Amino acid sequence: MKRIKLTVAYDGTNYHGWQIQPGRETIEGVLNRELFKLLHEDIKVIGASRTDSGVHALANIAVFDTETRIPPTKLAYALNQGLPKDIRIRASEEVAADFHPRKTESVKIYEYKILNDTIEMPTLRLYTYFTYTPLNVTRMSEAAAYLVGTHDFKSFCSVNTDVDSTVRTLHSVQVSQQENIITMRVAGNGFLYNMVRIIAGTLMEVGRERFAPEEIRQILAAKDRSAAGPTAPARGLTLISYHFFDKS
Amino acid sequence: MKRIKLTVAYDGTNYHGWQIQPGRETIEGVLNRELFKLLHEDIKVIGASRTDSGVHALANIAVFDTETRIPPTKLAYALNQGLPKDIRIRASEEVAADFHPRKTESVKIYEYKILNDTIEMPTLRLYTYFTYTPLNVTRMSEAAAYLVGTHDFKSFCSVNTDVDSTVRTLHSVQVSQQENIITMRVAGNGFLYNMVRIIAGTLMEVGRERFAPEEIRQILAAKDRSAAGPTAPARGLTLISYHFFDKS
Repeated sequence: MKRIKLTVAYDGTNYHGWQIQPGRETIEGVLNRELFKLLHEDIKVIGASRTDSGVHALANIAVFDTETRIPPTKLAYALNQGLPKDIRIRASEEVAADFHPRKTESVKIYEYKILNDTIEMPTLRLYTYFTYTPLNVTRMSEAAAYLVGTHDFKSFCSVNTDVDSTVRTLHSVQVSQQENIITMRVAGNGFLYNMVRIIAGTLMEVGRERFAPEEIRQILAAKDRSAAGPTAPARGLTLISYHFFDKS
Repeated sequence: MKRIKLTVAYDGTNYHGWQIQPGRETIEGVLNRELFKLLHEDIKVIGASRTDSGVHALANIAVFDTETRIPPTKLAYALNQGLPKDIRIRASEEVAADFHPRKTESVKIYEYKILNDTIEMPTLRLYTYFTYTPLNVTRMSEAAAYLVGTHDFKSFCSVNTDVDSTVRTLHSVQVSQQENIITMRVAGNGFLYNMVRIIAGTLMEVGRERFAPEEIRQILAAKDRSAAGPTAPARGLTLISYHFFDKS
């Protein structure tokens, strides 16, 4: 028995998110189905990030155990033969038998992309959020700095989430602009439900001058979802990379 | 009566190209339908570039005559209300009554994008052509230089095209690379049927070292479609911009 780690890229547009759901197409569901077709084993992958409906990934992680004699690094190619074009396995490798992608310390990077222009651009519509209200990127960067570090992010977590603790550490939150595209890049050790999208929605409110940058401090202190801005739409969000600190 | 010029951006993925065809969804067909809904006039737009099925545009041009009292610059916003999200009017303006987008001297810029990596990337699949064979960009740039200038591009034109002359002028052909994306950018006064895609397919053959860069000279001299490389797939191609020299 070997434990295999897959690095999975996908366009989330046509999926109901990562997590398997009866009667709906999900990334996890498609992976389990294709692994069964390829290996004839009843495999249930363990995902690292259970991304929401419409969220994209360049590198999410899935782990599973198998008896197959296909060399671990060849599994990516074999799986890609059967997978739809909007899901690709970028790498496959053997990992320690006790490696668990959600229980291993890691740094994850997410990007949220905003098209800030007068008119939407069709070829960007699936991967960026569009807003024509001019956003002040300098203010957004100032506000972002208040989020870096270890904080209770309860205000940046969708209500009714059942977690032991809402404390998380963000290593960096950077806001940059290239022509009419604003990119928010967040690196952290873990993210609460909808946390990156609520951060994006809140920084956009700062960019529209509805919040002052320093109000982020009060929003964090409130520990109340209603203190923060709206949850930004899924299509602007992409899981960029995962780095594990051990066993992988 | 006023003549209006529209600057049209679209994602060509879900359309059978620009030119109207019975029973198939085309950009021209959608524009005519939406103009009728908005203005209650039987409008047939004149397109600048009749892009193929699957080709994208940031700025194609459509011209039409109308009696409407909606201010010309407001037509873009009004049309965008009814158009599908994969077609957007970026600008609308009044032009001279005799302005014709195919009969006015212009410079058009096209880009062809190639993802050159070991594995496809789902979020790029609709807007780039993927090839895992390593492409030598230096050789592609060398080859591109032979195409610049006024030449008979008969070898770079799909057969059975009924045109008076296959002589065209290319102002520049640039090949650049950023990480795993290779971009070919071509500026010219006019393009034959499939010309940009055949240039892209031929430069990729040079990049794969199947043709020497200087063989482009012989390919041009042959005036024979079979001398050039294959027609590269539509999805990598985007019409970037149009510049007219007068009347607009």
